[in-house]
Amino acid sequence: MAVKTAYLDHAATTPMLPEAIEAMTARLGDVGNASSLHAAGRRVRRVVEESRESIADALGARPSEVVFTSGGTEADNLAIKGLYWARRAKGATRVLVSAVEHHAALDPAHWLADHQDATVELLDVDEFGRVHPQALREAVERDPDSVALVSVMWANNEVGTVQPVRVLAGIARDHGIPFHTDAVQAVGQLPVVFSESGVDALTLSGHKVGGPMGVGALLLARGVDPVPVLHGGGQERDVRSGTLDAPAIAGLAAAVRAAVTRQAELAARLTALRDDLVRRVRQAVPDVILNGDPVNRLPGNAHFSFPGCEGDALLMLLDAKGVECSTGSACSAGVAQPSHVLLAMGADGVRARGSLRFSLGHTSTEEDVDRVAEVIGSVVERARRAGLS
Amino acid sequence: MAVKTAYLDHAATTPMLPEAIEAMTARLGDVGNASSLHAAGRRVRRVVEESRESIADALGARPSEVVFTSGGTEADNLAIKGLYWARRAKGATRVLVSAVEHHAALDPAHWLADHQDATVELLDVDEFGRVHPQALREAVERDPDSVALVSVMWANNEVGTVQPVRVLAGIARDHGIPFHTDAVQAVGQLPVVFSESGVDALTLSGHKVGGPMGVGALLLARGVDPVPVLHGGGQERDVRSGTLDAPAIAGLAAAVRAAVTRQAELAARLTALRDDLVRRVRQAVPDVILNGDPVNRLPGNAHFSFPGCEGDALLMLLDAKGVECSTGSACSAGVAQPSHVLLAMGADGVRARGSLRFSLGHTSTEEDVDRVAEVIGSVVERARRAGLS
Repeated sequence: MAVKTAYLDHAATTPMLPEAIEAMTARLGDVGNASSLHAAGRRVRRVVEESRESIADALGARPSEVVFTSGGTEADNLAIKGLYWARRAKGATRVLVSAVEHHAALDPAHWLADHQDATVELLDVDEFGRVHPQALREAVERDPDSVALVSVMWANNEVGTVQPVRVLAGIARDHGIPFHTDAVQAVGQLPVVFSESGVDALTLSGHKVGGPMGVGALLLARGVDPVPVLHGGGQERDVRSGTLDAPAIAGLAAAVRAAVTRQAELAARLTALRDDLVRRVRQAVPDVILNGDPVNRLPGNAHFSFPGCEGDALLMLLDAKGVECSTGSACSAGVAQPSHVLLAMGADGVRARGSLRFSLGHTSTEEDVDRVAEVIGSVVERARRAGLS
Repeated sequence: MAVKTAYLDHAATTPMLPEAIEAMTARLGDVGNASSLHAAGRRVRRVVEESRESIADALGARPSEVVFTSGGTEADNLAIKGLYWARRAKGATRVLVSAVEHHAALDPAHWLADHQDATVELLDVDEFGRVHPQALREAVERDPDSVALVSVMWANNEVGTVQPVRVLAGIARDHGIPFHTDAVQAVGQLPVVFSESGVDALTLSGHKVGGPMGVGALLLARGVDPVPVLHGGGQERDVRSGTLDAPAIAGLAAAVRAAVTRQAELAARLTALRDDLVRRVRQAVPDVILNGDPVNRLPGNAHFSFPGCEGDALLMLLDAKGVECSTGSACSAGVAQPSHVLLAMGADGVRARGSLRFSLGHTSTEEDVDRVAEVIGSVVERARRAGLS
């Protein structure tokens, strides 16, 4: 009998919610550009603005604070490069980012350092991947006026650690420094209320919350004006140019609405499933190490190091057994480098390379966990033999 | 009896082709990120790569020359900023762009001049909106090594003028200067063969060829390596980061395939319809001026100046009569400024402001033309009276 595949890679992308598919497909036959003045254009504009209001409402923001982008990567680039350029004009050139950011935040920061006169300072994390407020405070207070921006993600995409974003944002705010957070993994799994977060810029991705790929948003508090990364027709109040993708935006709005409405229920269900997964993996592989914060972590995240194994080998063996997971960020998959996140947490290269992320989401079930529990022991054993040979 | 609306704003956006809607919706239920290594990821990767091959084949490019983006604006930004940054490293800082480019090309160039040490030189056009090869040759030969890139669109989005891109690209190539063209309006209306064009970088937009919004591509000849505008996970061979939007890419491929296959037939049909439209508008408004190149123009484009009228007034009056058109680029709609394209062609501000673009596409019919012919005379008369009062 064929066994159903256990898809445990929701942090890479989660399947679209039925309501998001419906909202999007309902608009694919529309005629008109949201920037056109005629009736067809105005109808499409209404779809965009109603979606904007819905997203703002779901996330505790004002509609005018929602800037649509092509996804999380673009939103991170806009926040980091755009705020840097805006602040460099005032002489601030230090970019403070945590050492465990996604590449979509780290790489823009490093590019600014290499080519745009910025200085990047990585904020260290502890063994659980946490940024300590004191570390940020010290970095800022060394010379507050020279800091262009601070960027610390809401929750880590690899090890699931949730950061004390509100406290960190407060430190930046005390010194008038814009604070950006990549909340791509947080929305839908954790309560995210923009107006209460103290954050100036927040990144959101469609396909991580059950919406479409190719769409996302940057929430921008009033008065926070990054320099555009995409120049052109001046859509999105001149912060982001490009024709507004109305069908995807409608799909995003439906997904955000559903994800936020069901967040608490989903979080409870995933936490129970995830804890069961961790327990049973530990049973099968007693020397396994759970990475990330043991308590403050994403409900759907379980990230392990399997001593003596190569992560890629584990991934392929599990794939052959119908378990789909990841060695880390999907975006860097295929690159045989140890994770910068684990290295920043103090893991050595061997432990970092022997790691696997299981990430659960809205379609995850107890059967998925059963499937992992059934095969993980023999798979790890096989990977260890391969590592020794 | 209700009269069917005549949608004559295909240059702003054209309705999705049924095959594109089908190809895209078929993929919305997929599970997996194209960068993931497991079976689900590999299935999605296959969709992306088959789409890439199909687009390359339809446009005379190699699959490895196709870089997916979120649309035309991003592709233009990547070409212009990216090639500038790559060439600045070698001391080349002059950016040569035609004076009639879309804002998605002009605005990046001006931003580079204002903030990134570039010098922008606008290539003049004649009364029909044509860039003369001699003008480019002179600008280049003044100091070839200082030119970072040249960007001239394949066909103008407002007045429809087709540029001598192959000749212009040849001049740049003779001096080893990268040549970019925005072919957003050309693909599907004109034959576009990348390998024969001599162009190094070519911008393509999904929703202008009957594909989805939110997706496009930059064709990049081998060895042409712009600096990324979006940094992150390193997708698209490190030129453009961000999760690959597989459903939209599948829709784009279906649209490009259909548009290219039917291009000659569509061009013939639209040319006949458009010529009929021009003839009948001239009958109704004898002093109307047809803008753009009388011969070398997009088959679907008819762009007029109506002396004594305000374009916005005409647009609204026509909209009320069920005719949907534009005063220029949809991206700048709502901005009451005379078109930079018409001004560059030597039109005065009054003529520029009194202009309207009718753009035909795959759903256009003789009834649409009839509708314009029925109402244009009385609408212009009314707009003139309003202008006098």
